[in-house]
Amino acid sequence: MPVSPFRKLAPYAEMARKQGRIVYPLNIGQPDIETPPAALAAVRNADIRVLGYSHGAGTESYRRKLAAYYQRAGLPVVMEDIIVTTGGSEAILFALLTCLNPGDEVIIQEPFYGTYSAFAIAAGVTIVPVTAIIANGFALPPLADFERAITPRTRAILICNPSNPTGYVYSRAELESMLALCKAHNMFLISDEAYREFCYDAPYVSALELAGAEPNVVVVDTISKRYSACGARVGALVTLNKEVYMAAFRFAQMRVSPPGLGMLLAEAAAELPESYFDGSKAEYLARRNLTVRRLQAMPGVVCPRPGGAFYVLAHLPVDDTEKFGQWLLESFSYENQTLILSPANGFYQTPGLGKQEVRIAYVINRTDLDAAFTCLEHALREYPGRTEPLPASAVEASVALTA
Amino acid sequence: MPVSPFRKLAPYAEMARKQGRIVYPLNIGQPDIETPPAALAAVRNADIRVLGYSHGAGTESYRRKLAAYYQRAGLPVVMEDIIVTTGGSEAILFALLTCLNPGDEVIIQEPFYGTYSAFAIAAGVTIVPVTAIIANGFALPPLADFERAITPRTRAILICNPSNPTGYVYSRAELESMLALCKAHNMFLISDEAYREFCYDAPYVSALELAGAEPNVVVVDTISKRYSACGARVGALVTLNKEVYMAAFRFAQMRVSPPGLGMLLAEAAAELPESYFDGSKAEYLARRNLTVRRLQAMPGVVCPRPGGAFYVLAHLPVDDTEKFGQWLLESFSYENQTLILSPANGFYQTPGLGKQEVRIAYVINRTDLDAAFTCLEHALREYPGRTEPLPASAVEASVALTA
Repeated sequence: MPVSPFRKLAPYAEMARKQGRIVYPLNIGQPDIETPPAALAAVRNADIRVLGYSHGAGTESYRRKLAAYYQRAGLPVVMEDIIVTTGGSEAILFALLTCLNPGDEVIIQEPFYGTYSAFAIAAGVTIVPVTAIIANGFALPPLADFERAITPRTRAILICNPSNPTGYVYSRAELESMLALCKAHNMFLISDEAYREFCYDAPYVSALELAGAEPNVVVVDTISKRYSACGARVGALVTLNKEVYMAAFRFAQMRVSPPGLGMLLAEAAAELPESYFDGSKAEYLARRNLTVRRLQAMPGVVCPRPGGAFYVLAHLPVDDTEKFGQWLLESFSYENQTLILSPANGFYQTPGLGKQEVRIAYVINRTDLDAAFTCLEHALREYPGRTEPLPASAVEASVALTA
Repeated sequence: MPVSPFRKLAPYAEMARKQGRIVYPLNIGQPDIETPPAALAAVRNADIRVLGYSHGAGTESYRRKLAAYYQRAGLPVVMEDIIVTTGGSEAILFALLTCLNPGDEVIIQEPFYGTYSAFAIAAGVTIVPVTAIIANGFALPPLADFERAITPRTRAILICNPSNPTGYVYSRAELESMLALCKAHNMFLISDEAYREFCYDAPYVSALELAGAEPNVVVVDTISKRYSACGARVGALVTLNKEVYMAAFRFAQMRVSPPGLGMLLAEAAAELPESYFDGSKAEYLARRNLTVRRLQAMPGVVCPRPGGAFYVLAHLPVDDTEKFGQWLLESFSYENQTLILSPANGFYQTPGLGKQEVRIAYVINRTDLDAAFTCLEHALREYPGRTEPLPASAVEASVALTA
């Protein structure tokens, strides 16, 4: 098992804080938006005598309300298509255990959520990466790249839409081409839709609403980001394929039931009106714009403008973002402040990639975010390992595509 | 993945209930004792703005209090030895993923908690059973049986102490001999101690308190049964072996953190005084005595008296307990009542074993429990597939050993 890529620099941040410096945390996707008070109140007001196991697929009342949430989004999902899981994490594990046999392969576009590697190890399967590039704003790579990656052991393509770590949002046409490819090769399309509510430039398209999704699509979802409730550990596996459902359900029975108190919270959250998201979306949108504006104004930084989630993946003009990240925490200070970033090498499987890239999570308030970028700007000037900017062509293509 | 053995008969029970019959649930280990009000109050009174991720090993405050709980029990456990997990289930999975590589073997005394098979499949490892017999009250089989089961791929012995499904409690001498065997063959001793608080005839001995436990012992624990809080999904992996700890911690980081609301409950529960258990232990003890007395009084039934947990594994004079269980729900009624049992074949890996045995969980109140046994007594008289009793020698040995 690899060390979690988000945590490599954490001990240095701790040291910097002990020395009295302010460290802006841009490294992890822990939203700062408050958990809906109505959802917390549902837990507080629950009348519990025995906190017993629930149904292995989650309580009926929550599954019913979650299905209604999907139906409001136009998805053909009923209660019987849902297995409530312990966070999106468990849904990913169940999806891999269900759709693949040990030794099988799953294709994932890199850079990808680093933790997928850990789930692949736990499920005994192999990730085959297909590389997306910053010059294209991390858009879907050519289908020919996917076709070349397919072997007799390939059973699935896994996408994260909107993407962690790039923030890229797939278009309907891209999703349709992926599904067609999966159908042509008898593969599953596993779609991690944890950030589905956070799309800023166009309406969201779920893999579940594609024509012909039924047999091939397995959706991984979670309330963690949607309702700023990461600690509740409530996610879901959603599929219209009954065979996949039953197989996943056996894994769900193995761990008996998902977290009961978290489900109470999730159930109340699922009843919130659409308008609940107006506030959090507006805030994230303002932060995205601030983030992209500040980063694009820094000489040598390349930052595509992502359409969703709350991350950007940016190129920095430094020799190695892991070294740079460590230097920021050990040796740098601007007005007694510094920041912690996620070096992007942890998001690539192909060795050597992402060495000049970082993921930035915009999950702190705008004042702090702005201050963090001012730090970064100064740091890039001072850092001894600064490198030449990328060739203008790469920068222009990226900015033209996404600005 | 096999269908969960506890659930095979559930649809028939549902049918019987729809027909208006009372069905006493003796099949699953869902305690009816109330969850400590003080623990539930801690959740209700928590002041939460953002329900965020915790440390991957669980909150420091809970781990500190859980360590204090173990210390009160005389175990040399500190906060840094504990990984809080999502129920005991996740601790079992982490233990198997950590102590074994895919394709390795773990020896488990059968009959065993049926779900271990599912975890073994998920972890890609093979269970090698060593059979315990009812004539010995399901005591530890001869060590020679374990030695014969060891191959070059054996990495661990997994015990459940007190045992689900037999209620057997290992003596210190038995545990020491197991640990010595593990040491001799460089194996881990994984000890599932979910029922550690429920021992009725002698003080409990944890594998962690054995001399030399440090490098070999990995304990799986949970608050599910201890505080009647199965739905909280809070367990723990405890080991003094730092290498195992770090490997398990990487799996813990994979799923980011355990359930946050459940940890609040668990933390308050860990602070309850020792005397908290007096009430639940006395209740379970009275039920155990009632269960054993009623079962031993039924002609042809063999029921060892178990020292712990809240199960008995009994021999019934019937052709097949799965058929009998179905017949109870489909075709039998005594004063409009019947019962649901767990056929024991689901607890054996060796095909054909357990066909005349059932697991009975005494997790309903004594009045209902007594009524359920009256039903069973009548049912055994009426059942068309009744068989001859076991030879007197088997019965006597069992009763002599355990009555």
